[in-house]
Amino acid sequence: MSGPTQPFCVGADQKANTLVENPSIAKSFQGAKVIITGGLGFIGSTLARRLVALGADVLLVDSLIPEYGGNPFNIDGLAAEGPGRVAVNISDIRDIHGLSHLIRGREYLFNLAGQTSHLDSMNDPIADLEINCSAQLALLEACRRINPDITVVYASTRQIYGRPDSLPVDERHLLRPVDVNGVNKMAGEAYHILYHQVYGMRTSALRLTNTYGPRMRIKDARQTFVGVWLRLVLEGKPFDVWGGEQLRDFTFADDAVEAFLAAATTDAAAGRAFNIGGLAPINLADLARTLVEAHGGGDFRIMEFPAERKRIDIGDYYADDGLFRSITGWQPTVPIHEGLSRSLAFYREHLAHYL
Amino acid sequence: MSGPTQPFCVGADQKANTLVENPSIAKSFQGAKVIITGGLGFIGSTLARRLVALGADVLLVDSLIPEYGGNPFNIDGLAAEGPGRVAVNISDIRDIHGLSHLIRGREYLFNLAGQTSHLDSMNDPIADLEINCSAQLALLEACRRINPDITVVYASTRQIYGRPDSLPVDERHLLRPVDVNGVNKMAGEAYHILYHQVYGMRTSALRLTNTYGPRMRIKDARQTFVGVWLRLVLEGKPFDVWGGEQLRDFTFADDAVEAFLAAATTDAAAGRAFNIGGLAPINLADLARTLVEAHGGGDFRIMEFPAERKRIDIGDYYADDGLFRSITGWQPTVPIHEGLSRSLAFYREHLAHYL
Repeated sequence: MSGPTQPFCVGADQKANTLVENPSIAKSFQGAKVIITGGLGFIGSTLARRLVALGADVLLVDSLIPEYGGNPFNIDGLAAEGPGRVAVNISDIRDIHGLSHLIRGREYLFNLAGQTSHLDSMNDPIADLEINCSAQLALLEACRRINPDITVVYASTRQIYGRPDSLPVDERHLLRPVDVNGVNKMAGEAYHILYHQVYGMRTSALRLTNTYGPRMRIKDARQTFVGVWLRLVLEGKPFDVWGGEQLRDFTFADDAVEAFLAAATTDAAAGRAFNIGGLAPINLADLARTLVEAHGGGDFRIMEFPAERKRIDIGDYYADDGLFRSITGWQPTVPIHEGLSRSLAFYREHLAHYL
Repeated sequence: MSGPTQPFCVGADQKANTLVENPSIAKSFQGAKVIITGGLGFIGSTLARRLVALGADVLLVDSLIPEYGGNPFNIDGLAAEGPGRVAVNISDIRDIHGLSHLIRGREYLFNLAGQTSHLDSMNDPIADLEINCSAQLALLEACRRINPDITVVYASTRQIYGRPDSLPVDERHLLRPVDVNGVNKMAGEAYHILYHQVYGMRTSALRLTNTYGPRMRIKDARQTFVGVWLRLVLEGKPFDVWGGEQLRDFTFADDAVEAFLAAATTDAAAGRAFNIGGLAPINLADLARTLVEAHGGGDFRIMEFPAERKRIDIGDYYADDGLFRSITGWQPTVPIHEGLSRSLAFYREHLAHYL
């Protein structure tokens, strides 16, 4: 890793060894004791890799529920990169007694465990509530009692906005979730903000937009439809684009990870919920074309939206994340073509571990 | 009851026999099968009395948890007023199996059961979540499966707004709850709205402001501080006014009850959450003076806000309830002096049942 000699420029290509550190991030995490819920998941494991590279001691908690994002392969080789600094605890965040033990002595909690599927939340709303709502409140209570000085960054979601009234969407937009998952994530986020307001804890929340990259779940659309597209392209099969005109923004995983680190190390972020967006919005048909181009081949079909999905379709969405940028200096850096190329390269090599 | 010959004018003094009916309300509830959760509580029992007078068949469900609002005396004499049309089932809304049985065949569900205390929600956040969040979602799921045609009106609260950005507060204001109770009520409301959006159920929510009147809990401030003031005045003791300058609005119970009936019988209310306000805002010192005047005596002390409470104090609040008025024709009718006088008269007669 090169020294912190240049201005803050996050998320640059680690493979090309051009990473330039924000000095305060590098300093904060060197030797820091960190816990990540959902630590074997897509963003959790990407964050873990980054933290290990920064010299942190990471404890990864994951339920490995088959329908969720946890995948042991996501941390393949990581223990060797940080000998004695990577620990894994397989447990469910609904297991509050276990979690109360695990948070002891940790300086940072990246709270990424969650149920993310729209359909699963409608088919089993109570399970979604237990994970995204009850377990979050219990975890914050445990932190307050046992480790009130811990810094907590919560993975929230743009889905809590529902259908936007105007674009881009900033944090002053009303929250009108369109599924059970959205309601529960809204409450989960609100508990985090509340525990700052009432108890002064260092809590913040990032409302992530579509995040993509290596290590995401691709066997189905439970995490994002982009995963399914990637898999089908790699398998040489056509993929379906529903609608196609909807504008969305996309954050590459490495950029999202830097946002978590920036939130955790910025005092002014405490007690706030921030949008995290991408470089520029793109419509889904153009995204499909970019994917085919990045892969050097592939087919897709533009399909009409089924009536049942239309009812909860949110139309266009892209974030105004200016608040987070101005407070932390963070900005996304990986363009969509590059992000898709890096994702394809990863899955070409490791596809079998994600099917 | 006089016939529906005059224009809609709700909430007028029933004792003076000047009640004028909204014909659609009278028609809707004659012979209707109604279930009220929190039915032995303050608003629930007041609503039950009104529904029995309208000829409805009411089933009252209440947990009678001692710290909550349920009080068997609240329906004293009611069974005699509607022989064979009043039933009581003592059970907790967390008991979803029992509730699934009780909702069968009911046309209207007035969903008023809830934990209302700020302090209790902070001391036992998980119990608040179970009642105000989990049980609400489970109840809506049961309705969807067993009785999807039922009309549901949910008792939400202005507390989900938190500290207002501007006054009066309308429904476009952001929700930023300042306690666990507020977060859970926000989620409870959102589930109700969602079940209209996704499943087409006839659900609506009323964001009640301070509601007061006969049958409210007065032994402590768990329901509203007004209850404690009333009790102390009646006991000849001074009461404390914290701050005094804060502007608030107050809805007399009979007016709130008419709002529930109007929401239930207005098609355009489905899928929406509405503010319910009072006739005019009043500051707390003036409210205290009005109470003393209505009682013909009494003392109060203006006290400085303790620092701990200041942190979650929301300052001034009063609602813009124009949306609900325009959609349903409802309007509050009982001025604060009259409402306090009627409350005092009730508790003078029945004080022992509320201590």
